[in-house]
Amino acid sequence: MKILIYGLGHIGGSLALGIKKYHKNHYEISFIDKDKKTLKKARRQMLGSGDLPGTSFENDSIRSADIIFVCIDPSKIKNVLKKIKKLETKKDLIITDVASTKVNVLSYAKSILGKEIAFVGGHPIAGTENSGFEHADPDLFRGKTFIQSGSIGLKKNVSVVLSIWKQLKTNIIQIKPNEHDRVFSYLSHLPHALSFCLNKVALKRLGSKRVKSFGGTSYMDYSRISSSSEKLWSDIFLSNKDNLISSIDDSIDFLKKLKLALKKHSQSKISNLIKSKRP
Amino acid sequence: MKILIYGLGHIGGSLALGIKKYHKNHYEISFIDKDKKTLKKARRQMLGSGDLPGTSFENDSIRSADIIFVCIDPSKIKNVLKKIKKLETKKDLIITDVASTKVNVLSYAKSILGKEIAFVGGHPIAGTENSGFEHADPDLFRGKTFIQSGSIGLKKNVSVVLSIWKQLKTNIIQIKPNEHDRVFSYLSHLPHALSFCLNKVALKRLGSKRVKSFGGTSYMDYSRISSSSEKLWSDIFLSNKDNLISSIDDSIDFLKKLKLALKKHSQSKISNLIKSKRP
Repeated sequence: MKILIYGLGHIGGSLALGIKKYHKNHYEISFIDKDKKTLKKARRQMLGSGDLPGTSFENDSIRSADIIFVCIDPSKIKNVLKKIKKLETKKDLIITDVASTKVNVLSYAKSILGKEIAFVGGHPIAGTENSGFEHADPDLFRGKTFIQSGSIGLKKNVSVVLSIWKQLKTNIIQIKPNEHDRVFSYLSHLPHALSFCLNKVALKRLGSKRVKSFGGTSYMDYSRISSSSEKLWSDIFLSNKDNLISSIDDSIDFLKKLKLALKKHSQSKISNLIKSKRP
Repeated sequence: MKILIYGLGHIGGSLALGIKKYHKNHYEISFIDKDKKTLKKARRQMLGSGDLPGTSFENDSIRSADIIFVCIDPSKIKNVLKKIKKLETKKDLIITDVASTKVNVLSYAKSILGKEIAFVGGHPIAGTENSGFEHADPDLFRGKTFIQSGSIGLKKNVSVVLSIWKQLKTNIIQIKPNEHDRVFSYLSHLPHALSFCLNKVALKRLGSKRVKSFGGTSYMDYSRISSSSEKLWSDIFLSNKDNLISSIDDSIDFLKKLKLALKKHSQSKISNLIKSKRP
């Protein structure tokens, strides 16, 4: 079976290295990446064959692929699906993705691919503040959760994709795309938004020297994810816009209530507001 | 020299264990704690002698102390200072504290103690989400920052207190109480407020089962500190009320701007908003 990894970033790169490590004899890997340095590094690690987008290699590797993992920013998935759709691909081709929002991606897939090409929505919960192939790790997914969410085509396609993720030692959960996007607006997109918020206001008011000298563990934990790529995250935020707006509204409400309780100097009000069991 | 640790919580307990470990031969330790179980445990660890507040032991240990570390919730410091002031204490007594706000504490000390008893403001940056003596650790402060901020009385008193913290392997920084409270509203109190916010809205909207199944590393890091004691934190928040309100206002502003940029579907606006170098 031939696997094409489209995009060797942190997730795509780790996936390629993981498949090489755990599925060595089952799959032939090829890859596409827009960055020449990444291609060089991947070749040096003997990940398989790969080249830039727009080359004849790209078209050949799409045509001959059995499975394509699309591992690029959510807003760019549309164009890649269009590119694939134009080519004469294998009859049983499965396309799958790793994007952290699912409703948008599934609707692109439905409208672009129709019923002719199978699509399996996926989201490994393994992002860190690092990005790029230089931080790729074949064991990034070990013990983490892989969420399968939404699909077009036969159920056995879903099984094929899941079997690959299982061998990378992930725990599999399946949920519907709507539910997925609502859950992750609160558990991933909002924490990132609040972390960006904290880091931005602290730096603005205190300057980076004071932040560095006085930031304790809680600040560092909290602002860690704010060093994530703003390009990727503005893209993710937009791809889950409506849910994120709701979660931001909830947060503004909470902060206004906290402010009011502070102004009233009411310890019991503050205590009730902030009290909650961590699950 | 006789040291009295007033309050064997996470910080006071760690301080007592640290002094026992690193200053064994220099100091005789006694302690006061309102919790009988804590007293029992501390006696079992042969920390010194100790008893409940309100006992004759308390008065004796205050009268004979050379240094008193007041390690209790900020709002209760006032009453302890009043209690000490009423007793006939040693002429060279130094009182010091570990509260995470300093303007309030220094003003209590000034008004209650006058010029007769020396006071040295302190704040070790070593809090975790844990509380209580059961999590006390003699090496909690190793490699952490100890901030000395504000004092009443002779400079040599400050040196006496700093020498104890130095031997617990802390890095010492000195700043003014005003500056301290402004800095920590952004670096400690706001991160806690945002963490409480995240955990509260996520649990409200998703329920604890979903939060547990789907919360990735970023959510867990982010919500870690929200398991801190709401009693302690409502107290800390109130003790730095005005600064915290300013930092909450800044955060609400940021979140409103982010919401607007999302509504406008402007990736460049979002990207500019969230972009900032982590120091």
